[in-house]
Order: sequence, then C-alpha cells, then structure tokens
Amino acid sequence: MKKIGILGTGMVGSTIATKMFELGYDVKMGSRSATNEKALEWVVNKGAKASVGTFDEVAAFGEIVFICLKGEAVLPVIKMLKTKLSGKIVVDISNPLDFSKGMPPFLIPELTNTNSLGEEVQKALPDSYVVKTLNTVSALIMVAAAKPGGAPSMFLSGNNRDAKQEITALLKLFGWEDIIDLGDITTARGTEMLLPIWLRTMFVFGHANFAFKVLR
Amino acid sequence: MKKIGILGTGMVGSTIATKMFELGYDVKMGSRSATNEKALEWVVNKGAKASVGTFDEVAAFGEIVFICLKGEAVLPVIKMLKTKLSGKIVVDISNPLDFSKGMPPFLIPELTNTNSLGEEVQKALPDSYVVKTLNTVSALIMVAAAKPGGAPSMFLSGNNRDAKQEITALLKLFGWEDIIDLGDITTARGTEMLLPIWLRTMFVFGHANFAFKVLR
Repeated sequence: MKKIGILGTGMVGSTIATKMFELGYDVKMGSRSATNEKALEWVVNKGAKASVGTFDEVAAFGEIVFICLKGEAVLPVIKMLKTKLSGKIVVDISNPLDFSKGMPPFLIPELTNTNSLGEEVQKALPDSYVVKTLNTVSALIMVAAAKPGGAPSMFLSGNNRDAKQEITALLKLFGWEDIIDLGDITTARGTEMLLPIWLRTMFVFGHANFAFKVLR
Repeated sequence: MKKIGILGTGMVGSTIATKMFELGYDVKMGSRSATNEKALEWVVNKGAKASVGTFDEVAAFGEIVFICLKGEAVLPVIKMLKTKLSGKIVVDISNPLDFSKGMPPFLIPELTNTNSLGEEVQKALPDSYVVKTLNTVSALIMVAAAKPGGAPSMFLSGNNRDAKQEITALLKLFGWEDIIDLGDITTARGTEMLLPIWLRTMFVFGHANFAFKVLR
C-alpha cells in the first residue's frame, strides 16, 4: 500500500486523512508548522500509521499526495515541494476561490475560464502526475458518496492515464460509483467552474449535503 | 394565454417555438430578416397561431419573449428592442460562449465569473423582467426533461418573483419537476459557468442527451 501525504489540516485534509487511515494506509498530514494544533489533535490515539509533519515532510513521505489547501495557498506551497513530489501522484482537491470581496466568493480571475488551478499545479510540478478530483463536493461527501436518489457523479481530470486509474480505484473505496474521466488537466476548468453554482445551491438549500449527478 | 415571441431561429428557437405552439400558445418566431428560411420552414402548415417576423416584430408581439440567440449576438440585438420589451418577461436561454479560438469554446471573459450575460441582459432591459433558465441543457432536453434515472434539475435566476413563478409553471409544462430558484439574476453566473463542464461531458459521452441532477 502506498504511503499517503495530506497537505492541509482543515476540514478537507482531516476528512481525507481519516478516511485513508481507516482504509489501512500510512498517512502523514501536515501544514506549515510541525506543531499545527489541528494536525496534532487528529493524530491522537491513531498509532504508528498516522503522523504529522511540515509540508516538506509530508511531500517527502507521501507516494500519493493530496492537496487540501485553500486555493490561494496552493501554488506558493507546492512550488517549494517540486523535487519531493517528483514522480508521484498529486491529487488536487483545491478550488481557486477568491473570498477577498466577501460572499459569495468568485474564482481567481487568472485561474478560470481560459486556465485553471489544476493546470497551474501540473505546470508547477512537471514531473508529478496531477489528478484533479473531489473538488465539486463538500468534505463529508468526498468520502461518503451515497445520496438519497442514487449515486452522484464524480469527475476526474489529468494527463496521465495510470494515475487516473489508480485514483479511480481509490474513489471507488470512497463510495463513488459513477466516475467520469473528463480528459486531460485542462478539463479541470469545468469542475472548478462548477463552484459558483455549487455555492448558490448551498445558499438555497442551507446545507452542503448535496452532489451533482449526470443523468443520461 | 400570453403571446409568445422567440428571438432566434436555430435549434433552440425552433424547439421552444414548436413546444409553445403545441401547448396552444400564439407564437411568433423571428430573426434579423422577415424572410429567414428556417423561420419560414418552421411556420409551414401550422396555421394562424404560428407566424414569423423580424426581431422588432417578435418583440412587439410577444408578452413573454425568449432569447434563443448565439451569446455574442444577444446584447446588440436586445439593446435595439428595449422599448418593445418594456414591462414584459424576457427568458434568457443564451450562453456567452466564445468560439473564436476553436473548440471547446470558453466563456466571453467580460461576461463570466464576476459578471454574466444574464446580468447584462437585465441591465440592457431595465424595464423588463429577465429570467435566466434552460441554458444548462441541450435544446431537446429543454422541452422533454425526463431522463433515465430520474428527473434532472433545472435552475432559475431573476430579480422578479412573479416572473419566476410564471416561468416555473411553464417549465413544469415542459416536463421539469425539480426546479431550483437560485436567487437574483447574479446567480446566472453559476448556470453559465456550468457550460465548460457540460461541453467536456458531451465530448466524453459523444452526445448531448444528458442533464444534471442535484441529489440531496
């Protein structure tokens, strides 16, 4: 079983870390600081297969590394990790949301429409296999996909077929049954641009416990 | 029954025109020229309740007017129709797609993310009641919403509650059961930004006979 690195200790990072730990993987979760409180809290009572570290330590440890960072933090962080992430699968779950003008956020203009954060991650990590996925649902649904009314759809973007196959197998362990490979990493534009309607739908429902299904 | 105007004679225009005619409405469909071939072909054997005309004649005739134009044509056309569309419901089905750089198109940059075509339509027609809807599916699904696997979701954006209620009733006649009112016209950003993933999904499936459902 490959070792798993989780960059980010927020809701998404700790949800993915917990799920991978429960699936039996060795997991290291981390942030800027090795003494991040959320990471230390997460590791309690989990034993030798769960550890915490700095971004650098997480990138060195993981054979599959998940990016679970706020959109604006992603590129500055991963640019420092290029060598350590070389040859590895990097799963980008982040979205380029800009909260600087209040709610609802919009997408960071230079990372949308004719570009995407997924593409910039792949450009910053030319020797890694970037797979963009899980960015279209809330953290809890990422690892518990079943919904009333059927199986929602999960999308996948990336340039490397083997990496996408490996992550597809993992998504199935997370409960995803309807997995749609959209194509190369430029298709991440589409999934990142789903965020505005996702946010507005969340406002209407008053909760984030929903997911899109492509009926066909 | 209100009189229906259809701006545009393409696949979307003729599909909506035919459905409204079948529902018993008086329908006038039009384009730049009153002798548009597609419009003349559409009107054959339909009797007095179907007619063709120029954009001007369609706008004057319709009490509910559908915008079924290519994205780039919408604003130039409707700006000329401001007076004739005053006080009326205008249903904007268009998307701000830019095909100038080839396939897949992206969204016209000044009409996305922090703006939308729907918003610009409402600004150009300050005395009309603009409702953005139906822009997230292909023409045939617009008027025949049932899919294998359940009822897909249709979204609605607009500033006027009465106008949205009237169009919601119409959407039900089109077969839509799950209609989600996202809020004011700025929420059209979300539905227009669904187009990139819609296009990529169409490429994967090789057809446009699909629709999104919000499972919750």
